[in-house]
Amino acid sequence: MKLSFNTWVYSSFPVWVPAYPIDETIKRIAKAGYDGIEIGAATPHAYPDYTGPERRREIRSMLEHNGIALSSMLPAPGGGAGFNVSSPLPEERAAALDQYNKVIDLCADLGGNLVIYVAGWQVYGTDRRQAWAWSRDALGQVAGHARDRGVTLVIEPTSTDSNLVDDCDDAIQMMEEVGAPNVKLMFDTFHALYRNEVPTDYVYRMGPNLAHLHIADVGRSAPGDGRIDYPALIAALREVGYDGYLTMEIGYDRRAVEPDLMARKAIEFLRPLMS
Amino acid sequence: MKLSFNTWVYSSFPVWVPAYPIDETIKRIAKAGYDGIEIGAATPHAYPDYTGPERRREIRSMLEHNGIALSSMLPAPGGGAGFNVSSPLPEERAAALDQYNKVIDLCADLGGNLVIYVAGWQVYGTDRRQAWAWSRDALGQVAGHARDRGVTLVIEPTSTDSNLVDDCDDAIQMMEEVGAPNVKLMFDTFHALYRNEVPTDYVYRMGPNLAHLHIADVGRSAPGDGRIDYPALIAALREVGYDGYLTMEIGYDRRAVEPDLMARKAIEFLRPLMS
Amino acid sequence: MKLSFNTWVYSSFPVWVPAYPIDETIKRIAKAGYDGIEIGAATPHAYPDYTGPERRREIRSMLEHNGIALSSMLPAPGGGAGFNVSSPLPEERAAALDQYNKVIDLCADLGGNLVIYVAGWQVYGTDRRQAWAWSRDALGQVAGHARDRGVTLVIEPTSTDSNLVDDCDDAIQMMEEVGAPNVKLMFDTFHALYRNEVPTDYVYRMGPNLAHLHIADVGRSAPGDGRIDYPALIAALREVGYDGYLTMEIGYDRRAVEPDLMARKAIEFLRPLMS
Amino acid sequence: MKLSFNTWVYSSFPVWVPAYPIDETIKRIAKAGYDGIEIGAATPHAYPDYTGPERRREIRSMLEHNGIALSSMLPAPGGGAGFNVSSPLPEERAAALDQYNKVIDLCADLGGNLVIYVAGWQVYGTDRRQAWAWSRDALGQVAGHARDRGVTLVIEPTSTDSNLVDDCDDAIQMMEEVGAPNVKLMFDTFHALYRNEVPTDYVYRMGPNLAHLHIADVGRSAPGDGRIDYPALIAALREVGYDGYLTMEIGYDRRAVEPDLMARKAIEFLRPLMS
Repeated sequence: MKLSFNTWVYSSFPVWVPAYPIDETIKRIAKAGYDGIEIGAATPHAYPDYTGPERRREIRSMLEHNGIALSSMLPAPGGGAGFNVSSPLPEERAAALDQYNKVIDLCADLGGNLVIYVAGWQVYGTDRRQAWAWSRDALGQVAGHARDRGVTLVIEPTSTDSNLVDDCDDAIQMMEEVGAPNVKLMFDTFHALYRNEVPTDYVYRMGPNLAHLHIADVGRSAPGDGRIDYPALIAALREVGYDGYLTMEIGYDRRAVEPDLMARKAIEFLRPLMS
Repeated sequence: MKLSFNTWVYSSFPVWVPAYPIDETIKRIAKAGYDGIEIGAATPHAYPDYTGPERRREIRSMLEHNGIALSSMLPAPGGGAGFNVSSPLPEERAAALDQYNKVIDLCADLGGNLVIYVAGWQVYGTDRRQAWAWSRDALGQVAGHARDRGVTLVIEPTSTDSNLVDDCDDAIQMMEEVGAPNVKLMFDTFHALYRNEVPTDYVYRMGPNLAHLHIADVGRSAPGDGRIDYPALIAALREVGYDGYLTMEIGYDRRAVEPDLMARKAIEFLRPLMS
Repeated sequence: MKLSFNTWVYSSFPVWVPAYPIDETIKRIAKAGYDGIEIGAATPHAYPDYTGPERRREIRSMLEHNGIALSSMLPAPGGGAGFNVSSPLPEERAAALDQYNKVIDLCADLGGNLVIYVAGWQVYGTDRRQAWAWSRDALGQVAGHARDRGVTLVIEPTSTDSNLVDDCDDAIQMMEEVGAPNVKLMFDTFHALYRNEVPTDYVYRMGPNLAHLHIADVGRSAPGDGRIDYPALIAALREVGYDGYLTMEIGYDRRAVEPDLMARKAIEFLRPLMS
Repeated sequence: MKLSFNTWVYSSFPVWVPAYPIDETIKRIAKAGYDGIEIGAATPHAYPDYTGPERRREIRSMLEHNGIALSSMLPAPGGGAGFNVSSPLPEERAAALDQYNKVIDLCADLGGNLVIYVAGWQVYGTDRRQAWAWSRDALGQVAGHARDRGVTLVIEPTSTDSNLVDDCDDAIQMMEEVGAPNVKLMFDTFHALYRNEVPTDYVYRMGPNLAHLHIADVGRSAPGDGRIDYPALIAALREVGYDGYLTMEIGYDRRAVEPDLMARKAIEFLRPLMS
């Protein structure tokens, strides 16, 4: 198991500042000791439309130069463009699908092989089953493109923010309905806590299909500042043979934050528990 | 003086849900008794790229049918695309400028004539004066396009979120540096409170150049639930001859909200104070 | 629209005391001015096995004598016996089904015609779809018995406590899958708030199938002590032509409570809003 | 002195979820290092009516296989059926008595020899002395059956929930009035704290008749998270020659809980204090 750190807290998403350029962000996360970095597809880091071929080569080279792997990428849903795969607007659904393909390409171009799938949300007036079908079909389509690029898609339950794929069983059901070999599962401890569920239950339920993991404690705080049972989580991950990343997705929902402190606190707390 | 209501709390920006389609949103805000509506350029309402000519005619017709005016429009900065006019990335600056032009076109197509200018924010590593210059130049350029479409741009200090045009004097300085007849001022009481400043001071300082106004109390609550001196604010607005909208931009920073309640509480509190 | 009051706060479920006999409870709720009473199938009020034919006639007579209607009944899930229709234990599933039939009989014997269906919960190790199927099949079976007794069953989303039928769309889907004429819908504002959803959305979504309603504000407090938009809720209920009860299910999750105060506060707050 | 862990937090009582099957629960509590397990007579673990002879043999075998003793059992009072031995309803008193006999049988069948007696509660309208007499007489009757099965009954003061046997002296008085050799005493630190009493006072008062012990700190938290003086408690227990279990009954009053964490925290805190 390796440790990774998500870039939101260093980016302009969803809070505008503090924001650091991508080179500064990579350097700092690597310096904090992480094995991997999860790059969110948001400015000023790596919004696909702003990141041309030359820039992609530069970022890839920065990653190599700093000795840090690209653990994963994910889109930034919810801005003006939304990118809600379950939107009632056909234009938005098409744009969301297109954005996923762009993030997959960007991920592969940067040397990565894992992209997170946020399954969208139900807007008032849309039947839940219709929203689900749109999301499932979108995932089926992007899965084909992802396979061509050697990328695995992992479905994330996002109960805190959404109302469609909210928990472990929702994600499993969607994975099974899509039935593509490169569609797997992940979860975020923060969303499990929002539902008052037990993180280790998710580990055992997802088992061999668990391909990625977000770590955040109550209030998107760093591990150690909340109430999660980390020794049990790590033991459960070992038990199911998990060999992916533990990715910190923390501190990004507020302006009053020191990103480097978030990065440092998490690794200082978790490293000893993992050895 | 008229009352308007901003659509964020009914949209997927920045919180994904609750979210209502634009027709439902227009109907509800009109029913609450507002004279105008401020439409944010975000999904599922009116993201320019998702809103074709036919759809624009429909929305315009909905507004007329519901007897409500389009008081104003504004972009949705901060998603993956950022649309930060002061970004260190030239691609983002170009996209932001382009987005402003699109929002101006959309506003005019929908029968409106006022677009809010969010002046961007300074990313780590960018000199403040450089960020300022980028923002000012962008505003100068979009002002030309706005004039052609009969649209006024109003600069909003956004201290809570940004670090560039943070207060009254910043906005005045930028207006003067651009020096275009259709570039005016606005402020949001919420951002004034964030800086612990006095809203009426802003009214007197901006005076005849004050062309728009956002109302929100502490915690983005509705008027009456916070600490603002509304009688004084209304008196000051009268004193400077303000004849624009008082636009509620409230409740949109949280999921636990009833949008209709926000709309009704604000108008029930303010109407009696205005007559 | 009429007002009803649920008996939990006067019973030994789930908190043992304060607890009042059923005659005292009926008298007090009637005296507070309610049109109806919702009797929970718990001791010391009306646990089916403890309530013989003679006692049923007495209770029915008490209701008539106090001029109050039996708006509805509901079982008490979660004690030692559980009565979880989705339990992995076949013995418990059978007992839960049997208990529903007993509550239906009791309700009819007391002169009522509406029983609430709590759809159960998923125990660790049970697949969600299996739990759903068990619950749906149980509902289908008890619906037959309910029809014979002239009783309507209403499915209640219970997100705060459960993990199976958590929201509006879950309930709608289950109703449609069962497809029985006497299976309808209800919701509890408290559970809608737990999911940070908008109560009026539920009203419009359930529309003509909305046959019952629980009212409780944050913390199971009485209307007026929380954050719900009651005028909007009542207006929405009128709009969809709702003619059932607004049933208070409040204050019962704590020992430190005065049941009569709960009953009085709620009606004093709501009556003026309804006329 | 040995450590035991109560199963409520892993069961559907009184909070429905999280809930784990009995085999999973036994395995986890044993793995945490406990010498004993206290099994509550609730679903999905061991509700007597759901637990046939074959199942009893299986559970007994699970206990042996996991190397953990059955320290004790207790009924789940307060659901729809109540099982209040002091209920004004004769049907409920009979059912409560019957349930105690069933729990005693189940306990013996599973290899245990200690059942907790919750002395019921006074419903409004019942004279205290009458409630007491009903409870005492019930205890006298079940004590006979318990003796036949080799089971000791321990009276627990439950001030937080009830109003009849609330403290140390109430329990002593009832024990003496019943005067059966297999009726002894226990206490729960949580209930002593509720009355602002000193746990060691209970130890010395109960002395040689103290046959069982529940440990929980303020808010039903694990030892170490509250305010109890554990070294003094352990010293007092040694002084009176206590050789029973210290049984953790914690974390079960809320949904937001990780049962394994409760089990581990308690033992990690207490083991060092006991050696």
